[in-house]
Amino acid sequence: MSIAIVGTVAFDSVETPSGKADNVLGGSATYASYSASFFSEVELVSVVGEDFPAEEIAAFKQRGINTDGLEIKKNGKTFRWRGHYGDDLNNAQTLATDLNVLETFDPKLPDTCAAAQFLMLGNFDPALQLKALRQMKCRPKLVVLDTMNLWIDITREDLLKVIAEVDMVIVNDGEARDLTGESNLVKAAKAVMAHGPAIVVIKKGEHGALLFNGGEYFSVPAYPLEEVFDPTGAGDSFAGGLVGYIAKSGEVNNDNLRRGMVYGSVMASFNVEDFTLNRFRELTRAEIEARFLEFKKFAEF
Amino acid sequence: MSIAIVGTVAFDSVETPSGKADNVLGGSATYASYSASFFSEVELVSVVGEDFPAEEIAAFKQRGINTDGLEIKKNGKTFRWRGHYGDDLNNAQTLATDLNVLETFDPKLPDTCAAAQFLMLGNFDPALQLKALRQMKCRPKLVVLDTMNLWIDITREDLLKVIAEVDMVIVNDGEARDLTGESNLVKAAKAVMAHGPAIVVIKKGEHGALLFNGGEYFSVPAYPLEEVFDPTGAGDSFAGGLVGYIAKSGEVNNDNLRRGMVYGSVMASFNVEDFTLNRFRELTRAEIEARFLEFKKFAEF
Repeated sequence: MSIAIVGTVAFDSVETPSGKADNVLGGSATYASYSASFFSEVELVSVVGEDFPAEEIAAFKQRGINTDGLEIKKNGKTFRWRGHYGDDLNNAQTLATDLNVLETFDPKLPDTCAAAQFLMLGNFDPALQLKALRQMKCRPKLVVLDTMNLWIDITREDLLKVIAEVDMVIVNDGEARDLTGESNLVKAAKAVMAHGPAIVVIKKGEHGALLFNGGEYFSVPAYPLEEVFDPTGAGDSFAGGLVGYIAKSGEVNNDNLRRGMVYGSVMASFNVEDFTLNRFRELTRAEIEARFLEFKKFAEF
Repeated sequence: MSIAIVGTVAFDSVETPSGKADNVLGGSATYASYSASFFSEVELVSVVGEDFPAEEIAAFKQRGINTDGLEIKKNGKTFRWRGHYGDDLNNAQTLATDLNVLETFDPKLPDTCAAAQFLMLGNFDPALQLKALRQMKCRPKLVVLDTMNLWIDITREDLLKVIAEVDMVIVNDGEARDLTGESNLVKAAKAVMAHGPAIVVIKKGEHGALLFNGGEYFSVPAYPLEEVFDPTGAGDSFAGGLVGYIAKSGEVNNDNLRRGMVYGSVMASFNVEDFTLNRFRELTRAEIEARFLEFKKFAEF
């Protein structure tokens, strides 16, 4: 089944303890779409400027990502982000943000996209997330929302409004605490659920991720990487793998959610092995399945 | 098979966000012994003063803990610790420490104890840990060392000397980083192994615990507690459950280590539900087995 993924497409300039990359492909929708495309059909909804290379659009298509929903704004420039990671690889320091075409972005979902059975609202302005959600022709089987501290801090009310309408919220531990005021993550997850969503996922970086699905609790460890080359897009890759797997399996149930959490962790662990989308450009299904089996061994007793 | 557990027996006064308790039973060897006693025979090696209540010694014995190695110092006073936990339940603030009889403690292992097949060196002065280890009649099947930041900071050389002679080191994430200078926990575990031990366990509080056994990696989640009543002794209870289970099963292999990690987590999760040893005093095997099965469900996919 197909997933509509709404979010940003960007050029990133990133410096990490392992190296640097300038003006490389990035953005929440880009990472999530690449990751999800290993599992199911993807409809990308975003905006870029005229400076966006035709080869990158071709690369999206080659991965089976439909770009009909990718608006190319005339005379516009693509969104740019410059960031830095110090020793704490869980938190990027933003050095510069040029919104460019994002400033006036008004997401319009093409028909194929508005008919998708799964909708992922990538990290993005919550008012626009809600606008995208309202364009769906039928209620999707699963609506997933990712967000970040920026939106929790500056657009809290808009964020809570869209959270009330989604099925699953994906946040990291710091965001869960900021959003709810609860330092205990079990309490924080319940507090998010009290706003509406039945499913809450809390990403914890090197400590893995937690799934709260009604009364069910599931924990997936992190892949034991000795080197995190570039954490940019790890959260989006996780979300893309998680929702991609569930869309592939077709049904939102506890077993599929658990396996989706593991596939999300697999995809995030590959993504951080190199800058930008480099790792995903050469990744194979066989590598994904091999790593999935490794995760099984990490938790078996 | 029996475990000799060397460490402290104390009176604690603790304040946590959930309440307070004054002059209650505590100490690394106490928590570890109570926890391990649910699985195997325990030989306690420690020291107390004449102020130590006969009922507490009777309570040790009632749990099958042999107290022949518990020295009662004439005219001495039992070690006392006063601590406080704020919102960060992973780190105690020490408000006062009265070493008392601990100041001149010179561990002497009785014969039954020196013949134990398993040895746990609880959190304690590393010079005394080494002294205890040297008194073993035969090399035990497994020698386990627990420690804390204090010893890493002030007796680093002594600590590395005893680490070189043990099979398993149990530390928390902060201690692993302090001990090795590595912020990545996989690298930190390898760096500890480079000092000698084949097995390293890293406790991560609310994020569970990791086992590194040669090239094997195992992750156990934390029990999803909404309320941590008192974290005092959680690490010691974890270690006691872990080693207790391995001693019960008799063989140090990967399967037993993994199940031991889970039993350790089970015991720590019970211990933090109440002050001092209260939870252990009423705990049943059936409750332990039921929680073990819950842990299975948390990680299954």
